[in-house]
Amino acid sequence: MKTVTCTAPVNIAVIKYWGKRDTELILPTNSSLSVTLSQDILHSKTTISAAKEYTQDRLWLNGKEEDITKNKRMHNCFRETRAIRKAMEDKAASEGNPIEPLSTYHLHVCSENNFPTAAGLASSASGLAALVFTLAQLFELTISTSEVSRIARQGSGSACRSLFGGFVAWEMGQKEDGSDSVAVQVAPESHWPELEALICVVSDAKKGTSSTAGMQSTIKTSTLMKERINQIVPARMEAMKKAILERDFQTFAELTMRDSNQFHAVCLDTYPPIFYMNDTSRAIIQLIHEYNASSPDGKLKAAYTYDAGPNAVIYAPKEHMPEIIQLIGHYFPSNKEPSEFFADPYNVTQGTKLGQDFIPKTHTNFNEKVIPVQPAGSVSRLLHTKVHDGPRVLSEADSLLNAEGLPKRLA
Amino acid sequence: MKTVTCTAPVNIAVIKYWGKRDTELILPTNSSLSVTLSQDILHSKTTISAAKEYTQDRLWLNGKEEDITKNKRMHNCFRETRAIRKAMEDKAASEGNPIEPLSTYHLHVCSENNFPTAAGLASSASGLAALVFTLAQLFELTISTSEVSRIARQGSGSACRSLFGGFVAWEMGQKEDGSDSVAVQVAPESHWPELEALICVVSDAKKGTSSTAGMQSTIKTSTLMKERINQIVPARMEAMKKAILERDFQTFAELTMRDSNQFHAVCLDTYPPIFYMNDTSRAIIQLIHEYNASSPDGKLKAAYTYDAGPNAVIYAPKEHMPEIIQLIGHYFPSNKEPSEFFADPYNVTQGTKLGQDFIPKTHTNFNEKVIPVQPAGSVSRLLHTKVHDGPRVLSEADSLLNAEGLPKRLA
Repeated sequence: MKTVTCTAPVNIAVIKYWGKRDTELILPTNSSLSVTLSQDILHSKTTISAAKEYTQDRLWLNGKEEDITKNKRMHNCFRETRAIRKAMEDKAASEGNPIEPLSTYHLHVCSENNFPTAAGLASSASGLAALVFTLAQLFELTISTSEVSRIARQGSGSACRSLFGGFVAWEMGQKEDGSDSVAVQVAPESHWPELEALICVVSDAKKGTSSTAGMQSTIKTSTLMKERINQIVPARMEAMKKAILERDFQTFAELTMRDSNQFHAVCLDTYPPIFYMNDTSRAIIQLIHEYNASSPDGKLKAAYTYDAGPNAVIYAPKEHMPEIIQLIGHYFPSNKEPSEFFADPYNVTQGTKLGQDFIPKTHTNFNEKVIPVQPAGSVSRLLHTKVHDGPRVLSEADSLLNAEGLPKRLA
Repeated sequence: MKTVTCTAPVNIAVIKYWGKRDTELILPTNSSLSVTLSQDILHSKTTISAAKEYTQDRLWLNGKEEDITKNKRMHNCFRETRAIRKAMEDKAASEGNPIEPLSTYHLHVCSENNFPTAAGLASSASGLAALVFTLAQLFELTISTSEVSRIARQGSGSACRSLFGGFVAWEMGQKEDGSDSVAVQVAPESHWPELEALICVVSDAKKGTSSTAGMQSTIKTSTLMKERINQIVPARMEAMKKAILERDFQTFAELTMRDSNQFHAVCLDTYPPIFYMNDTSRAIIQLIHEYNASSPDGKLKAAYTYDAGPNAVIYAPKEHMPEIIQLIGHYFPSNKEPSEFFADPYNVTQGTKLGQDFIPKTHTNFNEKVIPVQPAGSVSRLLHTKVHDGPRVLSEADSLLNAEGLPKRLA
């Protein structure tokens, strides 16, 4: 029995992926670019074991067994990685140095997120990235990380961006077979360590449209989408890469906010329209614009972005994070115990009460009435995190499977 | 002393006006098309008197005197109509048949809306239309209604569309002096009397961006706006005119909803983004789409549209209005006396309790859980109205000014 355990991070796009040109292979209609967030705060963890004795492939997700044959996308990832392993085994055999025929063994897969799936925090991206990265480790595939990302892409489009740390572009590619639709690292996390993120988990009663269904509806019905795909995103990709390479937060911030808004604009231009942001999401946007507008030197200090849900992710340089957390903490008061509400592994608030000194001292023109203080609990959780590394290989002690290849914990 | 009193209606666009190519003359970046709603329900009423004895132009708006010299746009309308009157007077004098030199008299203007200005119900459109129409009557201008609309346009862009009843296009025009940027009637109200409207006044704490500032910000910053202006609206204008002429509610409804959504999409694509709809607005949208989707014959039965505010206007054929009112009444319960909440001059609910039979009997697939029942008061008022006529000249008895040329009522 061979067992490997890995974790993969969540990534949050600053140039958004929305629309597939091939739904089977998951090939996008435009390139996208994301920032990889620390696995210390959010990650998917996957253990895979291969054993001759196993009689079938089995899968446990967050402690519950699932029927792996019904998960076509995951199945694609199995098939692709096994095929590469098989080629390696055949080559090794033909050279007289046979290796273990892992490609013929059944697999046990156990995967967990350290955050609730329902929170809408890109769990499928980190989950599929962890799966494919772990498969690549288990099979000892001698392929580049971009090649691994090509396989992960077929599991969940944005998963390909979770194969790298730092700043990651998913180049849409041109080929029909998708072989050039892969993720590449624009810059590692060490390039711009000052960049941090604050995730505001926004409470929402309603379940939004799934992104798989939503994006194809936009492609089919939005009359503005073509302009975005053909003209706007290509130019923004180049500008965003340059901004990252130059650590130019002004351009990074403006492009991030503009692209988030445009993604939600094409959702609204979809017929019937798709809504992901709610009144709380919009209040955060207005607050961040007021915070930036009252910045003493006229410079942007924070940028919001929203995926296919109401949660905000606020990117900001480390130096501004304490005041941003105070600001959000004031206008979006908690109805929970502080420790339940705010995860502050970097201790930025240094023991001060959240939301107490909410107007930054230097922001003399800050309009306190930009939004009313929102009902307690409108934001249910704040997570402070930062740009960090790509998938990690963990030790045997971290395995989610026991010696029998069964989950140590069940839900 | 010569006195004239007129009313002008509210119009609600189905192809939206958003963006000026000339802010001075109020020339739009695209044509637009609207439906004129009944003055029985909503109107602006204006009395203007001219007298040799008056020592200055005076203006009372909703019972409060305002400084007319500070209202540049209104001033433009005075100047233009006086100039035409002056030319008529000169011509008459030169022909030996002098007419009263009204163009040299000061004017007293008294204007009232029969609905709260703050409700965001296009009060500036009806108000300026009433002003200019009354001036044209007072001065007995021998110009076409489209010419009157050209003048009203300079007071408030969409006011030009309130000069006609029925279905009205504001053709953007091409000339720099704006002489071809006028309203024309696509069809009179008698053409499609079955079309009715339900106005849902949505409660909203925050004051949105003024449309004057908002539209110029969109023009300057939205990267999607060019496509809308140059490609999408021109095609939609033609399709909408055809739909109206053919009384094709299916096309009318789909275009109306798509264009409302696209207008709000370009607002969201503006930097910083502009939001006019709130969670209540969006809940109404989702409800209408569910109502349409569950329609037994697969046909659209209602169409929503939103201007620069959270209020919904629902257009629907008369036959569906009773069930639409029950539907809205159920999901958006009132916290007021029924008569304060629902204006039903056409008695469509015929005494049944609002919201009681909210699922149309024929809608067997209607998903009751599409939205939760909203907090009481989310919609503060329902007004049932229909397509109706253009400005009306009233009798002396309706004058807002007394024999001394002063308001009969002050606020």
